[in-house]
Amino acid sequence: MERVNRNRLRNLINQFSAFGATPGNGVSRLSLSRADIKARNHFREICEDAGLSVKVDDMGNMYGILPGLKELPPIAMGSHLDSVVRGGRFDGTLGVIAGLEVVQTIRDRNMELNHPVMVINFTNEEGARFDPAMMSSGVLSGKFAKEVMLRSVDTEGISFGEALKQSGFEGGKENRLKEAVAFLELHIEQGPVLDSYGEDIAVVEGVMGMVCYEISIKGESNHAGTTPITMRKDAMFAAANVIVQLQKELKKLPEDLVYTIGRINAYPNIHTVIPNDVTFTIEARHTDSDVIRAVEEIIEQLPEEIEQCTFKHEKLWERSTVDFDSVIVDAVDEAVGELGYKTRRMYSGAGHDAQFIASYIPSAMIFVPSMKGYSHREDEYTSYEECAKGADVLLNTLLKLDRKKSDDKDRETSVISKSTHSIK
Amino acid sequence: MERVNRNRLRNLINQFSAFGATPGNGVSRLSLSRADIKARNHFREICEDAGLSVKVDDMGNMYGILPGLKELPPIAMGSHLDSVVRGGRFDGTLGVIAGLEVVQTIRDRNMELNHPVMVINFTNEEGARFDPAMMSSGVLSGKFAKEVMLRSVDTEGISFGEALKQSGFEGGKENRLKEAVAFLELHIEQGPVLDSYGEDIAVVEGVMGMVCYEISIKGESNHAGTTPITMRKDAMFAAANVIVQLQKELKKLPEDLVYTIGRINAYPNIHTVIPNDVTFTIEARHTDSDVIRAVEEIIEQLPEEIEQCTFKHEKLWERSTVDFDSVIVDAVDEAVGELGYKTRRMYSGAGHDAQFIASYIPSAMIFVPSMKGYSHREDEYTSYEECAKGADVLLNTLLKLDRKKSDDKDRETSVISKSTHSIK
Repeated sequence: MERVNRNRLRNLINQFSAFGATPGNGVSRLSLSRADIKARNHFREICEDAGLSVKVDDMGNMYGILPGLKELPPIAMGSHLDSVVRGGRFDGTLGVIAGLEVVQTIRDRNMELNHPVMVINFTNEEGARFDPAMMSSGVLSGKFAKEVMLRSVDTEGISFGEALKQSGFEGGKENRLKEAVAFLELHIEQGPVLDSYGEDIAVVEGVMGMVCYEISIKGESNHAGTTPITMRKDAMFAAANVIVQLQKELKKLPEDLVYTIGRINAYPNIHTVIPNDVTFTIEARHTDSDVIRAVEEIIEQLPEEIEQCTFKHEKLWERSTVDFDSVIVDAVDEAVGELGYKTRRMYSGAGHDAQFIASYIPSAMIFVPSMKGYSHREDEYTSYEECAKGADVLLNTLLKLDRKKSDDKDRETSVISKSTHSIK
Repeated sequence: MERVNRNRLRNLINQFSAFGATPGNGVSRLSLSRADIKARNHFREICEDAGLSVKVDDMGNMYGILPGLKELPPIAMGSHLDSVVRGGRFDGTLGVIAGLEVVQTIRDRNMELNHPVMVINFTNEEGARFDPAMMSSGVLSGKFAKEVMLRSVDTEGISFGEALKQSGFEGGKENRLKEAVAFLELHIEQGPVLDSYGEDIAVVEGVMGMVCYEISIKGESNHAGTTPITMRKDAMFAAANVIVQLQKELKKLPEDLVYTIGRINAYPNIHTVIPNDVTFTIEARHTDSDVIRAVEEIIEQLPEEIEQCTFKHEKLWERSTVDFDSVIVDAVDEAVGELGYKTRRMYSGAGHDAQFIASYIPSAMIFVPSMKGYSHREDEYTSYEECAKGADVLLNTLLKLDRKKSDDKDRETSVISKSTHSIK
């Protein structure tokens, strides 16, 4: 089994951490900001120094390409270099950096691959500056309309289109990722599972489906001191009872279901006034659509009146579970096994570019541990060695796929030849 | 029994409703605003037209004084002309207007009272422009330091001191209300009790004591999709369980206890993030300090850890129950009885100037119904006839107290004379 160069990977991590570095040891590297542009230029330099050609498409996605021995579609790897405000140094960046390390290791050791190898930096994955998240992989896969995306504006009124033009990273549509034999995204878990079980690698089988509702409880505002309890329509106590009831019902579903009430707003939100409106979101994620359906039923079967308040729910959005390509997932799994790293399979609860790319390119993801599950915060942390193990898996999966897909191609050609003969 | 002039009272209500009138049939008459200054000037004109002298003290409190037959302390009535933003036409204003109607009725009918009669307009009762509420009655009663109040600023950075000076209503400290045989405040209930029971008048025995806590639940923020339920410290579910638990315990206390969770804030309040902090207020009001103590015990005995989150509470403030003077309360009660109006006794759940004045002048309050308990909103409503009944009670209580207090004075003088004689 091959292993990447630990020192070089460490240096890469430190170099990229400098772009948009924050005092709290994190990064603020909003998409197409000055810090992001510096990171992009550094990405380009490293690619060119390593003998890769660099292409940029019309969404600013960057592709570093190492030619292969044969005229085949590439094997692609990558993630994103942009971050949220005061985010961590690993989220997204690790997947790009590890790709750069992998191609350099391939060059160092004069490994000869049949397929070209491609390292991708996707534009605006976080959606922290320009809504929505996973914007550019969304455009590549046809989920989002490019024209709509170009009009997305940041808090200062600058559109994505303008920012892209000004950045100098607006390339041609002809450069878009159109086909590849595989897409591999190495990423930090952003959850606590690997860390708490002391495991090195998660082989990611897909991205969980989810559903998100907004629930509104309407009561009546009155003076907190003058309204007897029995004459109240108190939306706050009604909401608390609904939440506890929801929790009780959701606990009965499979224990790997996750559900969150992340946002709550009460109106008028004054300590001396009985709230007349308490509105909150509830979202739930699971791989099994039947479990998601059970969550929907729990919400939809809540009574229309609770503690003399009226209850309304609205589904804000949902997405189906994305299952990654089993051949690619198995290749990752084999590589991990051969490397002897502690591993588990899991579905991602968070969204990633790979979930969109998976719609037209066989894809899979590799997770490395996030300390305490911290992410989108400055103290997000994955050790150098954990990062290196992730890169090892990326490298060996790549090599495995290169062999396997070349063999498949040969067999395919051979089959076609034979059948052609037999028809004749 | 005497009755006030219905037509004149109706006109007064309509006249004052014009100052700061809002499209929704309410008033926005923040303290010392242009609308409030118009109302103050109108108050002065009516007083002067009715032969009252008008004095203004150093907090801008206005006093219209009708002389009595004897050199006695006055019997005082009043409330406030300021309102909240988009408040109602009756809150406060009714108590001042009814005072003006009462003195005009006294003049019309050539009633001769031994005591001077005083109509008061207290400055900045609402605290809606300058914090705190009941500012000027607080200064008169020594609860608040005038120097601190002068520095209170509105949202535009204007201090109360500046606004007072610019208004032209800064008078002399020597004009402050120092003594009176009684203070009577007629006010709308601002609660639903009289309206729902179809009663005319509440004889107000005092103002309920209250306590207000802030409760914080601290958990840990993590990604809503990637953190298994068992690894969470979810402050939202913990808070909901605490609220339901509090409600369950509070329901066991006397049913006239009122308790409210008016304000709740979750952090970071993003639908895809597990909240790490949910903070809410809980306030409770009751006349009996033992019941308030029981509320405190319920809060203080909550476990320090709930659903793996930590629990903290802080008492924001408390105030003791204010009991009004039983002689004055009984006089109100007798007047209502003699007028034949449907009545009940109650404690006010809301704060009023009378609760501060009561600390040095024998006081009581009279409530008239608020439709559905609405207050601090444009559709606050009390019918003209209900207002008039309140003014009738004010008038007859005043007459009753004038006779009674004169008799007391005579008896007192006689007792002193006698005892002087006996000592001699």
